[in-house]
Amino acid sequence: MTPPGAPASGEDSLIARYFKPLATDPGAFGLNDDAAILKALGGDIVVTTDALVEGVHFLADDPPDTIAQKALRVNLSDLAAKGADPAGFVLALALRKVDETWLAAFARGLGADATGFNCPLLGGDTVSTPGPLMISITAFGRVPPGKMVHRSGAKPGDQVVVTGTIGDAALGLDILKRGKVAAALPGDALSRELLVGRYRVPHPRNALASAIRAHAHAAMDVSDGLAGDLAKLCAASGVSAVIDLKSVPLSPAASKALAAGAVGLAEIVSGGDDYEVLCAVPPDASEQFSRTAQAAGVAVSPIGTIIAGESAPKWLDEEGKELPLAHTSYSHF
Amino acid sequence: MTPPGAPASGEDSLIARYFKPLATDPGAFGLNDDAAILKALGGDIVVTTDALVEGVHFLADDPPDTIAQKALRVNLSDLAAKGADPAGFVLALALRKVDETWLAAFARGLGADATGFNCPLLGGDTVSTPGPLMISITAFGRVPPGKMVHRSGAKPGDQVVVTGTIGDAALGLDILKRGKVAAALPGDALSRELLVGRYRVPHPRNALASAIRAHAHAAMDVSDGLAGDLAKLCAASGVSAVIDLKSVPLSPAASKALAAGAVGLAEIVSGGDDYEVLCAVPPDASEQFSRTAQAAGVAVSPIGTIIAGESAPKWLDEEGKELPLAHTSYSHF
Repeated sequence: MTPPGAPASGEDSLIARYFKPLATDPGAFGLNDDAAILKALGGDIVVTTDALVEGVHFLADDPPDTIAQKALRVNLSDLAAKGADPAGFVLALALRKVDETWLAAFARGLGADATGFNCPLLGGDTVSTPGPLMISITAFGRVPPGKMVHRSGAKPGDQVVVTGTIGDAALGLDILKRGKVAAALPGDALSRELLVGRYRVPHPRNALASAIRAHAHAAMDVSDGLAGDLAKLCAASGVSAVIDLKSVPLSPAASKALAAGAVGLAEIVSGGDDYEVLCAVPPDASEQFSRTAQAAGVAVSPIGTIIAGESAPKWLDEEGKELPLAHTSYSHF
Repeated sequence: MTPPGAPASGEDSLIARYFKPLATDPGAFGLNDDAAILKALGGDIVVTTDALVEGVHFLADDPPDTIAQKALRVNLSDLAAKGADPAGFVLALALRKVDETWLAAFARGLGADATGFNCPLLGGDTVSTPGPLMISITAFGRVPPGKMVHRSGAKPGDQVVVTGTIGDAALGLDILKRGKVAAALPGDALSRELLVGRYRVPHPRNALASAIRAHAHAAMDVSDGLAGDLAKLCAASGVSAVIDLKSVPLSPAASKALAAGAVGLAEIVSGGDDYEVLCAVPPDASEQFSRTAQAAGVAVSPIGTIIAGESAPKWLDEEGKELPLAHTSYSHF
């Protein structure tokens, strides 16, 4: 709907039809102003930004509602890992062309998650591009003053804990790219679908934010590969870690692919796109943390221990042999 | 610098070399965490986001420092128009390739403006793209609680005021695209340079933010063309306006191009990329507003009056004849 007297420009009309219904927060002013207001409410505002590019972070033929969900959820995952409760987001969307069917599905997916995660759209910018579709989201969260959980607080003796299961998304991408994994799961459409779903739509662990804030010394989300991300957390904390490979939580589908030899453990722990939370929990808090996680419906697995030192974390198999890791994480360049 | 023990991934290394020096705010944590903290300080946080695409918002061969400046300044311009003081920004940068010379210049331009406008880098995301360069910035500003200036407060009788001069940037783009304007300014390299400069590097009016907050009933920045943006402000306020075309402030270079017939007034008032502030100032505040603006070194020009009604604003020439406007503003679609 174009306001009376205003010119009916293309993007204004698109924004009004598809995105205005998502701007439920009073601070969004119905997307009818140049900026939004984020009320402070006495705490700190946590800010994170993640951009997704077609062909890099998602595939051109991924369903548009899942593309929108992924774009928001990768940001929600950062908020969860920082112990922050979602407060809203802004969206910059670069489109090659206006495809109303695509946009309607995109907005539907975005709206469902904005509601589901209590993270309303506050504002945005829709522009044209001659290139690939790009979605850039900046999301905001709230923590009590000084309570954001950092990468840098891990201490020797802390348990290394991850949520959910690791490696599924990378296997899902391999399936979409017609790699070895699909061939290793013949007649198992359910497993293939589950892995593809994990690539397309991450499950950010926002239900665990307050427990992370209460109990974790350090946390980050696993986005570029567990091994690389653990190395970053250890480096930021000035510590090292020893990981027990057999404790790394795998889905039944990932276990099957591993057993069939379609993928190795090294690829699983460095695959990326997991959007689970990796955290360092002090031993005296680990029981309480597990109990809270269980109540929140989030599986958590201790996979190793933070140790003193500055060497790269060690990934040990059942015989105590170190797993060689050629590439610990995804890098764009 | 890669932290000890951390994998030296390409983008981590780029970020550390080029962007970490810009992250001077304690809330940025040296770009060494997954999120930043924006302290609330008792006021409201104003949030705005603008994305720039190569070939759409800037030209591929524009100097990289000016591209960075434009990307930040179009956001600063929104903050100024909302009466907000800059608090920081996050940057999502999609690069086709790593060109260190280009990146160094880009970061230099960005850093100079982050310092000059007191708007530090808080965080970001650097990704690869197979397509055009894209820069998405979300900027934050502060206003006292409830004091953001809206598009929607204009009242009949208010003066319509614009800062600076109108139309220069559109003429500058015409010159870069080898249009009629360059030919109309033969032997006048200075004018051509000035117009191109206005396209490449806007001058956001942040010096005027507190005066806008104190005196304007409504304000927005002029980014898509003065005529279209005035229509939006009027529509949001439920009013109309009468504009005196000869009062629209033009630079000497734009006046020359107009006199030479290379451009018409309609194109000037609907050109876009001005990044000036358009505001509605009540008559009893206009003298104080002008005096404050003068003290801040920002030229302001009254160009017309807000009137009751919902029709599109009228643009009148010296004989009281209405200027026909085919396209009042730039639209992406």
